[in-house]
Amino acid sequence: MKELGRHFIFELFGCDPNALDDIRGIEEAMEKGALESGLTVLGRVFHHFSPQGVTGVLVVAESHISIHTWPELGYAALDVFTCGKNTDPMKVFSRIAGLFKPASNSVVEMKRGVLPTGEIGK
Amino acid sequence: MKELGRHFIFELFGCDPNALDDIRGIEEAMEKGALESGLTVLGRVFHHFSPQGVTGVLVVAESHISIHTWPELGYAALDVFTCGKNTDPMKVFSRIAGLFKPASNSVVEMKRGVLPTGEIGK
Repeated sequence: MKELGRHFIFELFGCDPNALDDIRGIEEAMEKGALESGLTVLGRVFHHFSPQGVTGVLVVAESHISIHTWPELGYAALDVFTCGKNTDPMKVFSRIAGLFKPASNSVVEMKRGVLPTGEIGK
Repeated sequence: MKELGRHFIFELFGCDPNALDDIRGIEEAMEKGALESGLTVLGRVFHHFSPQGVTGVLVVAESHISIHTWPELGYAALDVFTCGKNTDPMKVFSRIAGLFKPASNSVVEMKRGVLPTGEIGK
């Protein structure tokens, strides 16, 4: 099975509430993780909600990274969607997990753009 | 099972290549779909690749909408992640499908942030 993109869907539970509300720390961790993963940042949107919570998206040449946090519940949703062959999306997760210190987490990898054999790489 | 967010993951195959490369048309369709879905747009990043292909993200108060297109393969990946109760993410899909005219498509709905009963709504 050959795919155009790999989409990693992370769930992080029992995180540090202060870290989940730290918009600057989150943007820095996402950017460092993106660079370490071999991704090229094209644009970004970060937003801090009142009274709490952060949403952030990095658009990268290889697709996107998004995060949404609920500090009051210790939860964060992280997505890393990449279409590059020489990228390592887990480095984004490592940076974010290092910041949030989740008590538990899960990941699902979805293959995106699975086309009939022979279509990809034309 | 109670969740914080609903994440709809669409795969669109056999799309109109010209529509997949039309960055303005895509941004307009995403924005109209977001408004019709009851979402509030906070920010956006749209990028046209050379020689072809579009990446676009709308950050909304209720999470995000992202799209990545491969005109040369007739394929698009659309994600609609919402945490609002009174939102209808399928309206984003309707707008995009109306533009791209896919020959076939699929959707997976993932529940994001499934916390122990009683945690949500505190």
